[in-house]
Amino acid sequence: MADYEIRTYDSIKVGEKATFSKTVTQVDDALFAGISGDFNPVHIDEEYAKTTQFKTRIVHGAYTVGLISAVIGMKLPGPGCIYGSQKVRFTAPVHFGDTLTAIAEVIEKKEKGKRLIIKTTVVKDSCVFDSGKFPKDTVVAEGEATIFMMK
Amino acid sequence: MADYEIRTYDSIKVGEKATFSKTVTQVDDALFAGISGDFNPVHIDEEYAKTTQFKTRIVHGAYTVGLISAVIGMKLPGPGCIYGSQKVRFTAPVHFGDTLTAIAEVIEKKEKGKRLIIKTTVVKDSCVFDSGKFPKDTVVAEGEATIFMMK
Amino acid sequence: MADYEIRTYDSIKVGEKATFSKTVTQVDDALFAGISGDFNPVHIDEEYAKTTQFKTRIVHGAYTVGLISAVIGMKLPGPGCIYGSQKVRFTAPVHFGDTLTAIAEVIEKKEKGKRLIIKTTVVKDSCVFDSGKFPKDTVVAEGEATIFMMK
Amino acid sequence: MADYEIRTYDSIKVGEKATFSKTVTQVDDALFAGISGDFNPVHIDEEYAKTTQFKTRIVHGAYTVGLISAVIGMKLPGPGCIYGSQKVRFTAPVHFGDTLTAIAEVIEKKEKGKRLIIKTTVVKDSCVFDSGKFPKDTVVAEGEATIFMMK
Repeated sequence: MADYEIRTYDSIKVGEKATFSKTVTQVDDALFAGISGDFNPVHIDEEYAKTTQFKTRIVHGAYTVGLISAVIGMKLPGPGCIYGSQKVRFTAPVHFGDTLTAIAEVIEKKEKGKRLIIKTTVVKDSCVFDSGKFPKDTVVAEGEATIFMMK
Repeated sequence: MADYEIRTYDSIKVGEKATFSKTVTQVDDALFAGISGDFNPVHIDEEYAKTTQFKTRIVHGAYTVGLISAVIGMKLPGPGCIYGSQKVRFTAPVHFGDTLTAIAEVIEKKEKGKRLIIKTTVVKDSCVFDSGKFPKDTVVAEGEATIFMMK
Repeated sequence: MADYEIRTYDSIKVGEKATFSKTVTQVDDALFAGISGDFNPVHIDEEYAKTTQFKTRIVHGAYTVGLISAVIGMKLPGPGCIYGSQKVRFTAPVHFGDTLTAIAEVIEKKEKGKRLIIKTTVVKDSCVFDSGKFPKDTVVAEGEATIFMMK
Repeated sequence: MADYEIRTYDSIKVGEKATFSKTVTQVDDALFAGISGDFNPVHIDEEYAKTTQFKTRIVHGAYTVGLISAVIGMKLPGPGCIYGSQKVRFTAPVHFGDTLTAIAEVIEKKEKGKRLIIKTTVVKDSCVFDSGKFPKDTVVAEGEATIFMMK
């Protein structure tokens, strides 16, 4: 078995931060549609998408929750954590080819239940379809997670 | 282009309900890991998972958000909707082979911004690993979504 | 379990129509090659494809049968149907990035065996490689399906 | 570029036969659902499938057309062929884990248009869910293809 560095609740400090970046490909989103069953045409039908305010297909908002899950599950706090809850607001569209960064920052520790409150933000580091309204550096998703550490 | 039945905000009534069911396979979760980057060992390392309170690998909580996205994006309200936000609490583990049902129910309409508040619940219709604590019929995720309709 | 609206044979009328649209990506076709085993070079070897009358890689004809299966299995008649048979003629090449619409239309009901005869047509709503011979609006596959309803 | 052995119409004899076998996994069918959009519950919802005459989830019939495409596109006649049309009757259910063999046999050559008529049969070589009615050796799909050779 791999050696996992399991963080304890006590070792984690408010203010700790971690990031995970990924260029979102058509593959990622096509597979997301396939595993979730969400074939809403704004994601898979370019002709329909052209008729909407988005002008072209957009990535599933729920996919960005996966990137948040990655930065939490892999880095902060990483192995040993349990996902309690997630709030997320989808604030700008994401397109195939955009590079996103998911940022996790511990903003509070709740002794009752030994919960970590983690601010979760996903920003565009680059974008392939710049509508002017939502350029590079735009926040595409923001919210917070509650995380427990396994005993 | 396909004929899409686009619901208007006005046509949607509080109390409307829709469901989407899927048996969650190892495929779904392996692909979810692959597209999100969340390789937390509790999802992909059976030897590690055995040492945890879960006793075996569990499905990513964030994956269940995809099923919520499916029932909203495909059924209620379906094409024409915009995902504003999602709150979700992960309340029980999910295992490969469990059959889940995502349930969407319109619980409120907010005239300001013409938002729909949709209660989102994911329940186990069957489970392959019954720990006694989390059998069939357990709610595995609960929360609510805010949805806008495109103009 | 999800609430499925199961159509009865009697409720289905000749002339009913349904559609399903999808932009066909390289992902879709790469996965189709991977799950079917059809690695014919006209689909996966761009250098070879350039030497053919198609000038570039084309999508598997058999993939378009999947879109027909989708409109039948999801919409007309949807859950409760059994796929009896399919005839399909492949009438024009499809390229990655083309948006296709699969159209199902009930053209006959056969009381013996309670079979539905469904005309199945797949057309290009847009195309990324316009050879002049096969532009937008071209029918790429046409034929018919025989469908039974479960008892 | 790879060396492809391109068969000529004249070199192909009536009676030639080729086969391709594959064990159908949950992966294959989950991906087929994902790329086609066919999430009919008989394929993806075990609880629903239990209530049907099939008793458990079945593989998409249209997927077996992919195996036919493979034996034609890879072996008989292989590279250089163009898929003109396919007729297929789905004669028995297929389950995850079944091993299928797609058989192509040239049954006629039509000088007009230089078409090959190929009998296409898919049989179960093994099956994991033996309902008694459809055991090992059952034909699951049968029909014929019309194939052209590129000039």
